[in-house]
Amino acid sequence: MDVGVYGLGRFGTFWAACLAAAGCHVKAYSRSEHPLPEGVERGSEDEVLSSPYLFFAVSISSFEGVLKKVGSRIGKNTVVMDTCSVKILPRRWMKENIPADRFMIATHPMFGPDSGRNGIKGLPIVMCPISSAEDERYRDVKDLFLQMELDVLEMSAEEHDEEAAYSQGVTHFVGRTLSAMGMKPTPIATQGYRSLMTIVEQTCNDPIQLFYDLQRFNPYAKEMRLSLQVAVEKVLNALRREEED
Amino acid sequence: MDVGVYGLGRFGTFWAACLAAAGCHVKAYSRSEHPLPEGVERGSEDEVLSSPYLFFAVSISSFEGVLKKVGSRIGKNTVVMDTCSVKILPRRWMKENIPADRFMIATHPMFGPDSGRNGIKGLPIVMCPISSAEDERYRDVKDLFLQMELDVLEMSAEEHDEEAAYSQGVTHFVGRTLSAMGMKPTPIATQGYRSLMTIVEQTCNDPIQLFYDLQRFNPYAKEMRLSLQVAVEKVLNALRREEED
Repeated sequence: MDVGVYGLGRFGTFWAACLAAAGCHVKAYSRSEHPLPEGVERGSEDEVLSSPYLFFAVSISSFEGVLKKVGSRIGKNTVVMDTCSVKILPRRWMKENIPADRFMIATHPMFGPDSGRNGIKGLPIVMCPISSAEDERYRDVKDLFLQMELDVLEMSAEEHDEEAAYSQGVTHFVGRTLSAMGMKPTPIATQGYRSLMTIVEQTCNDPIQLFYDLQRFNPYAKEMRLSLQVAVEKVLNALRREEED
Repeated sequence: MDVGVYGLGRFGTFWAACLAAAGCHVKAYSRSEHPLPEGVERGSEDEVLSSPYLFFAVSISSFEGVLKKVGSRIGKNTVVMDTCSVKILPRRWMKENIPADRFMIATHPMFGPDSGRNGIKGLPIVMCPISSAEDERYRDVKDLFLQMELDVLEMSAEEHDEEAAYSQGVTHFVGRTLSAMGMKPTPIATQGYRSLMTIVEQTCNDPIQLFYDLQRFNPYAKEMRLSLQVAVEKVLNALRREEED
């Protein structure tokens, strides 16, 4: 399978390597001179944009701008996919900026270089159909993900964003908050604290832009943050009542 | 070694079983009819109070009251220890309510039935001397913990409480907050979210009283909670600035 990866940031580099490891012939394009992972070839922007299968791996906040610039240059027979951590807005941006006759799928590989360090087998990947899910091009991509032994989850962009706000979104929020608090290792760490430290390290290894984008571009994230603040107040109030007893 | 365990709640039952598994002859007393773990004998209150080595395993909030009631009945040659998750106040309560000629050590086994499910080897236990740490009775207890393959950490009660507020205390606070938020499993869970769920389950398996006591009776906990609230505000403000850009 000939696959193009557009963008070689932290995730794009990792994803290109995963696809190459799965036997795909991968050409990658990036604006700046990022090093190429093993088994991945560098391609020109137009070469990558006209790959039979194309994954965009750019930050959520830059995706709309990228599409406005290159959307019309995407190959006539190219299957276009994004890999953003939110799905409602990227789906809209793809529909608005890519000619309607291109075949489109919104995807979200729910892992990265940290959580996938020991292999990606069994890890979840979300597929939200944009063009018809009955089409054989959709099935080809699904088969590729299954061959990579990923846990393929098909759902609407709305379902994805709501579930992701309350899982991935809350995890990153907790990780960034504990990091802002200056959490550090201690010899008396309990098992629970050690796990918490790992979460902080992993979320803070990702670029800060991913954190902002997860919170800004997921329409359910604001409600999630409010519900987290309400929960903090609830716990503090229960403590106050206990102290008055 | 003949050991008494006073209190058979969730932790006392687990700790009595650990001591029996390490070859101690364990007699346990509890106010109500808790089932006995394997290898542990039931003893009368006075029998247990006059064991050569005695561990109190009662909730932090009940410890002072228990000592006021039974402190004077503790055997003349008994080495008295607590197992509370905070150390400054229990040390004071022991000194105030146990005759001064009894040998006393404050301890905190930093694990429980969840984190110690697959064995306690390598897990931390804190010892804060009350009577002299040069005494052979202190060394005997330390040797017992080392024989149990625990990671023995000796420090002052003040050092313990400060470190514990920012590790065990913050972990329980995060666990209770996310539980109050109604966190639940989702098929699209990332690895980080799965770890977070495990922390929530483990902290919420412990009695709610332990949570309240960790927060109320640790003099550093209030400062920790304030610093957590400040960190939440810091992250929210950074998000607001990012949205205005």
